[in-house]
This record gives sequence, structure tokens and C-alpha cells, in this order.
Amino acid sequence: MSTAAAAPSFDPCDPVAVAQALIRCPSVTPEDGGALGVLEAALAPLGFVCHRLRFEEEGTAPVDNLYARLGREGPNFCFAGHTDVVPPGELKGWSLDPFAAEIHNGRLYGRGAVDMKGAIAAFVAAAARHVKAGGAPKGSISLLITGDEEGVAINGTRKVLDWMQAKGEKLDACVVGEPTNPKALGDMIKIGRRGSMTAFLTVHGAQGHVAYPHLADNPLPRLARMLAAITAEPLDAGTPHFQPSNLELTTIDVGNPAHNVIPAQGKATLNIRFNDLHTADTLLAWLRERLDRVGGSYELDHFVSGDSFLTPPGPLTELVADAAERVTGRRPEYSTTGGTSDARFIKNFCPVVEFGLVGQTMHKVDEHTALDDLTRLTDIYGEVLRNVFDRLG
Amino acid sequence: MSTAAAAPSFDPCDPVAVAQALIRCPSVTPEDGGALGVLEAALAPLGFVCHRLRFEEEGTAPVDNLYARLGREGPNFCFAGHTDVVPPGELKGWSLDPFAAEIHNGRLYGRGAVDMKGAIAAFVAAAARHVKAGGAPKGSISLLITGDEEGVAINGTRKVLDWMQAKGEKLDACVVGEPTNPKALGDMIKIGRRGSMTAFLTVHGAQGHVAYPHLADNPLPRLARMLAAITAEPLDAGTPHFQPSNLELTTIDVGNPAHNVIPAQGKATLNIRFNDLHTADTLLAWLRERLDRVGGSYELDHFVSGDSFLTPPGPLTELVADAAERVTGRRPEYSTTGGTSDARFIKNFCPVVEFGLVGQTMHKVDEHTALDDLTRLTDIYGEVLRNVFDRLG
Repeated sequence: MSTAAAAPSFDPCDPVAVAQALIRCPSVTPEDGGALGVLEAALAPLGFVCHRLRFEEEGTAPVDNLYARLGREGPNFCFAGHTDVVPPGELKGWSLDPFAAEIHNGRLYGRGAVDMKGAIAAFVAAAARHVKAGGAPKGSISLLITGDEEGVAINGTRKVLDWMQAKGEKLDACVVGEPTNPKALGDMIKIGRRGSMTAFLTVHGAQGHVAYPHLADNPLPRLARMLAAITAEPLDAGTPHFQPSNLELTTIDVGNPAHNVIPAQGKATLNIRFNDLHTADTLLAWLRERLDRVGGSYELDHFVSGDSFLTPPGPLTELVADAAERVTGRRPEYSTTGGTSDARFIKNFCPVVEFGLVGQTMHKVDEHTALDDLTRLTDIYGEVLRNVFDRLG
Repeated sequence: MSTAAAAPSFDPCDPVAVAQALIRCPSVTPEDGGALGVLEAALAPLGFVCHRLRFEEEGTAPVDNLYARLGREGPNFCFAGHTDVVPPGELKGWSLDPFAAEIHNGRLYGRGAVDMKGAIAAFVAAAARHVKAGGAPKGSISLLITGDEEGVAINGTRKVLDWMQAKGEKLDACVVGEPTNPKALGDMIKIGRRGSMTAFLTVHGAQGHVAYPHLADNPLPRLARMLAAITAEPLDAGTPHFQPSNLELTTIDVGNPAHNVIPAQGKATLNIRFNDLHTADTLLAWLRERLDRVGGSYELDHFVSGDSFLTPPGPLTELVADAAERVTGRRPEYSTTGGTSDARFIKNFCPVVEFGLVGQTMHKVDEHTALDDLTRLTDIYGEVLRNVFDRLG
């Protein structure tokens, strides 16, 4: 537990000011760049108890994380996010300095503006306004902020959750501030995510000379037939809340430079984004059934970077959707599309949904958010804080 | 045209002595190592007019070749071969020095003993005995010896033949001394060879993120289906003198290290050893028909390292088979199996067959030939020289 930080040089009730302070910290994964200090400086004076959590593991860079909680009672409503950002890429592609947080034509520019320092700033401002308006929570408000979401995600949210479990820190509901809206604020709430499994196929044969194929066993025709077989038909037709699961071959590699040599083996990698009809085990069985039909010697390794999960429509999804609709006039769609987020870890501890800014410029040059979106997202999070304990308690 | 070389330090009538002198020249492609000088020293005193031909080309090493002719009249009977050898590989695998040409238990050991310095030595000895016995040829006897058969074969036989054509040097029949016998001298005459074509397939798509496949176009399922299609059925069932044509996939390469990225393209290489039912054009049409059935954008490049050819059974094949049978008591099989040889170039100029030593140890450690085989091969070539002008004239 850290002691209270120095008073911030910005108004924590102003989401633009908080977002600017955060963007000015060059927190490209795994660097913190001072970003978590900005948050502590904003939160501690409001009464949040801040825990800076530095995790490391052999072969990975150490990463700083922050768990901050206001209140000691349950239920504990959590806002989760990440201060780390992807690299700005080619600087010459940017119209403005990616770490200067400049405002131009009603937009705030900078790496992380939408993914997701803007949303963190909106949540901090909403919490600050809530506290200053005297809105004593009937439970606790907490922030789980990691510096390892855009990277390998080893020393981040997962380890913070383990630490919390060990400390008896229970979560009851969580909103992750990822930029979920495709085009306009209020478009979309993510109520689940597909899982992601990467599998590595190695097909074995016996090396030889192309002129004497009877003395060799070429593994590549089998590899081709296996890859054709596993891409011939969809895994499923989708479920009420999920797209069909999808398999993509990402690479095939043999690396044989000799045109007269039959290689001894061939390798392929595939990635499956899967819905709630599947687990890693059912996917591996599905794959093996098709590989075995081709036959021959092969190995199939895999890793799962996230199981699929769903927070079915209910009190939490409606709480956020109602808040978004009241502020924007739009009723958000419930969706499970897109890539993975740290919600894949949080879902093991409490119901979780994702709602943040408009994602159009995320990971791109000239990443930016409309100032109006920042203001309205702050209002939406404020509406959530006003209602959460009544509606979920 | 070179002047007569110094008298040799060995008896040109003794195939073992000539073979030892040749093996002691470390002529790993493209090095000559003095090997052609050994031949000139043996041939010039017999009356052969020797032409040392050095060819080079940008991007390749210069290579020495030798064309030696005894007599000015036609028909011109040619013995063709190569003095270059493949590298000895791991020296610790050899029982004897690969370039010492030591004799042990009735066998001559060394790199090139069977492929094919031994056969060249047998031909030189047969020619020397023929000349010394007063056998005035009713035509010409020539040797076409290259130093670029085991390598890229760019500055070798092909260019010697072009040079000969430019000089009006006509060939009427040729025996190539490759080690054609699988197990025992007299087993097999090669009367043709399959052709060899290498083709390079590139399948195009559009890069993207695996979580958003509708924004990308993964080329790899098409590549897999194409490769499965072209390996699903044989090209043909073989012909009276040829095995079925055979296609081997030699490599597939994408080189995409990112498990979450759909690659923009995939590449594969294949090699086809084809019989006299095919040419490069018919093979490309066969491939394109199957690739087009899968569809999508692809490129198909290729190169042909040799067309298939056949010297149908007739006067030349019977001349060599009769000689082999008279010496060994075995009637050689006519075959078109195995890899390519420089006969693929010579066949454009005159009928050509291949007959040499026993190939079991070629390209291996402890390459060796039985001394008895060297002696009998000399007798076989001598028998050919005695009869060639009567039977082919």
C-alpha cells in the first residue's frame, strides 16, 4: 500500500485533464511512464486506498499495476483497464506528437486516447464527481488498472486478480473500459468474448531424394490434406450471442531450400476464435478427428490465450445499457465480437461487461477521441455509479 | 587446342593406375584439381587432339572442360563423363583418405571411384589398348569430359556441345559412363531419363487480423486445397520404357510469426520427374487445370532442368548390351530410372546411352569400386570400340 501521492496538478473531475495527464506518460508496454502515479495522485485524495503491484517473471519484463479501492464494504463495483499502450509506430505518420495530448478541432489526440486512457480518465472523473457530490457508496468502488494488457499479459490483470483473491478482495461486478463502440458512443456493449486457441501441427515423414520417392515418405501431401480438411467446413453456426467459431491458418513452414529433397516434416499453425459451444478440449477433439482421417504421424500442440465467456443479458448489462441510452439516446447492441481483452481473466471472478469510447482510431496513427465523447462517457460512468448499488446490490 | 602434355607417370593402358591418378586430384566442383591434366597426359601421346575449354558466366564459378578427339573422319563415337566429384562430407566417416586412392581388399577407395573417375579411367585404358593394338578406327573416338556435372551444370557439357556445334564437331553416338549398375556390373543400361521440372506456386490473399477474418482473405486454405489437389492422383501410369511420372512437394513456406495475423500469401515448391508422355507445357497445363479448379489469385513459375528423353532399343543399346553380356555373362536391363545426367544435353545431338560401374557407394563415405569391375568395364568399353564402327557405321 502506497502512501498518498502529491496533490495532482489537474482537476480529477475533468476527464480531459486526466486523459491529457495520462497520455503525456509514454507508457508503451511494459513501461509505466508515470501513468499509474497520475492515477494515484487523482484517487488517493478522494479516499481511494492505492496498492501499487509490481509483478515479474523469468523471461518477461516487470510490470506495474494498480488496485485502488474506495470503501471497505461490499458489494465491490470495479472499473478495469490498462494504462499501457501500443507503440506509436512511424512518428512521421502522426499529424501531432503522440504523447503531447494536444487538442485540435474538438478532439484529443495521442496514443491511448481511446485505447484506453480516455476511458480511465472518464471513470476517474466520474468517481471524483460522485465522491465530491457526496454520493456515499453503499458498497465499494475500485479500479483495477494494469500496465500489461497490450503485451504478453503475464504480469498484469491475471496476477492482480490472484493477489486480490489471496487478500480476500472480492469483486461483485466489473466494467472494462475498452473502446467497444464501432462508430458512435452508445453503439455497443461487449457482454462476452470469443475464446482464442492457437494450435501447432507437425506432420512427420521420412527425408529422401525426389528421384527415389519409394525410399522416402513425403509428409507434405498429408499436411496439405489435413489443412484442407480442417478448413473445409465451419466449426459451428454460431449461438444466440456469438458469431460462428472461426479457424484461420496463420502459417505453414517447411524451410527446405533443396528442390530435389523430400523433407522430413512440415509444420502449420492455426488460430481458432471460438464461441460458447467450445472449449479447448472439444476443439482439439474436432481437429484430431479430421487429422486422423488423413492419418500418418503428427503432433498437435496448443495454447489457449482465453476461453470464451458470456455475461448473459441481465442486471449488469442493463445497468450499463440504460446509462448509455440515457446519455446518448442510443440503446447499445450486446455483442461478443472482436479480439480478446482482460475481461477474459475477470470473468472468472465476477460478471463483467465492456464499454468505453469509439474504437475507430485505436492502434492507428492520429489516435484520437472527440472531447464530447469523453464528457458523455464520464456521464455514463457517473450514471452507472449512481445506480449500481441499488440495482446490483 | 593445347600442346601435348608431359608423358604421364602411369600406364594409360592400366585402368587402376589412371583411376588412382584421377582420384588423387581433389576435383570437388567447380575445382579441377589437375584431373583434366591427367587425362590430357594420357590421351595426347595416343594421338588425341585435346581442347581445354574453360567456360564462365556471371554468378557462377569458371569451370574447365576437355574435348579430345582421335581421328578426323566420321562417324565420331564419343565417351562422355565428368571429373568433378561431390564433396567427401564428414572426413571422420571415411575409413581411408577420400583423395588417396588406396587399394584395400581388392577395392579402390576414394571420392569419384564409381562416380565417375573409375569409368573415365576404364575408357582411357580401353582407348589406349585399342590404339596400341593397332585398331585403326574407321571413324573417330572422342572424349567429352566436364568439370561441372555435380554442380549447377551451367559451364559444362551444355557449353561444350555448343562449342562443338559451332566448330562443326559432329557426334554420331555416345556412351556416358555414369554408374548405372545397381548391384553388379552388367545389371543395367540407362537408355533414357525422366525429365525434371521444378515449379513455384504463390497464392495471394489479403492480410488481416484473425479476429476479423471478414476484413481479410486467407490464402492458406486455398493453398492447402491446391496442394491436396495436385497430389491426389498420379500424373500417368508410366510407359513401356518409363516409370509413372511423379510429383513431390518439396517445401511450403509462409514465414508468418504472428499467431493473430492472417498472412497475405503462401508459397510452395514442387518437383516433377516426368516420362515421355509429358513436356513442361503439358505439365503446366495439368497443374493449372487443378489450381484453377480451386480458384483465386496465384502465380506459377517454373524451370526445367532436363526434358525426358529415350534412346529406343536399337543398334546403340544392343552394341553396349552385347559387350556387357560378353564380358560379364549378364544381359543388362534397359532402364530409365533415377536422377538426371548430362545425357539430357547430349541426347539433342546424337543417340546416347549410359553404362558404367556399380553405383552403390556413389556420393557416400568410403566410395569404392572393385578392381575386378574396373578391369571388366575396360574390357566392355574395349569391346564397344572394336565393334562400334562396323555396327553403327
